[in-house]
Amino acid sequence: LIKYLLLIAHGSRRQGANDEIIRLAESIAGHADNGYDGVLPAFLEIAEPSISEGIKRCVELGAEHIVVMPYFLAAGNHVYKDIPGEIACAQAGAPEVKIEMSQYLGASEAMASLVLDCSRRVDQASTSS
Amino acid sequence: LIKYLLLIAHGSRRQGANDEIIRLAESIAGHADNGYDGVLPAFLEIAEPSISEGIKRCVELGAEHIVVMPYFLAAGNHVYKDIPGEIACAQAGAPEVKIEMSQYLGASEAMASLVLDCSRRVDQASTSS
Repeated sequence: LIKYLLLIAHGSRRQGANDEIIRLAESIAGHADNGYDGVLPAFLEIAEPSISEGIKRCVELGAEHIVVMPYFLAAGNHVYKDIPGEIACAQAGAPEVKIEMSQYLGASEAMASLVLDCSRRVDQASTSS
Repeated sequence: LIKYLLLIAHGSRRQGANDEIIRLAESIAGHADNGYDGVLPAFLEIAEPSISEGIKRCVELGAEHIVVMPYFLAAGNHVYKDIPGEIACAQAGAPEVKIEMSQYLGASEAMASLVLDCSRRVDQASTSS
């Protein structure tokens, strides 16, 4: 099956924040052996493409299996209600495509390690312990 | 130097989201060789402890060097203005303590890999490619 990853961010009024997501999707797409035939970004609110537009774009590109990944740190209504609702709606309109939602980012078991790595990168030149 | 990590989340009206941050800080604290004498959570808004309270708590626990890590995905005003402002204010009140801000979560170079790992964890039992 042709498999696409749709990375869902909240969407921001600052285009710079949305651009970060677009670059992240490009970066993931560039990973060798990432397991996907394509990686696209989409936004729950404010920015475009919307989730339904993103799913439609994947289907147009030939996707037969779409994994929707919520790029959210906390499991709130967006993760448990809004995104599944958008998926259910898109699924109804494209019953031939398999659409699944993955774990949201904040639930990642590797998060503690990532935070530790990140905390070691201090802006200022002065570092000591 | 006694070194503490202060993990800063936005803060949510849903206590469940705040509890996730508290558990994450505990999980990081439990990592062997994490490089910190202690790891505490704090919140920019809404939830407690605040950043200033969190820094004060680190100092009371003996911290001589505090790394403040923004648990934020996007680099907006919170990361570039609000958190540095809180740090500057706390630093003025505790000049003997070295307080630094690290990279924010979303800037992590390992984020693409984490998203990929996370996307492979699909809720539903049906998985194929």
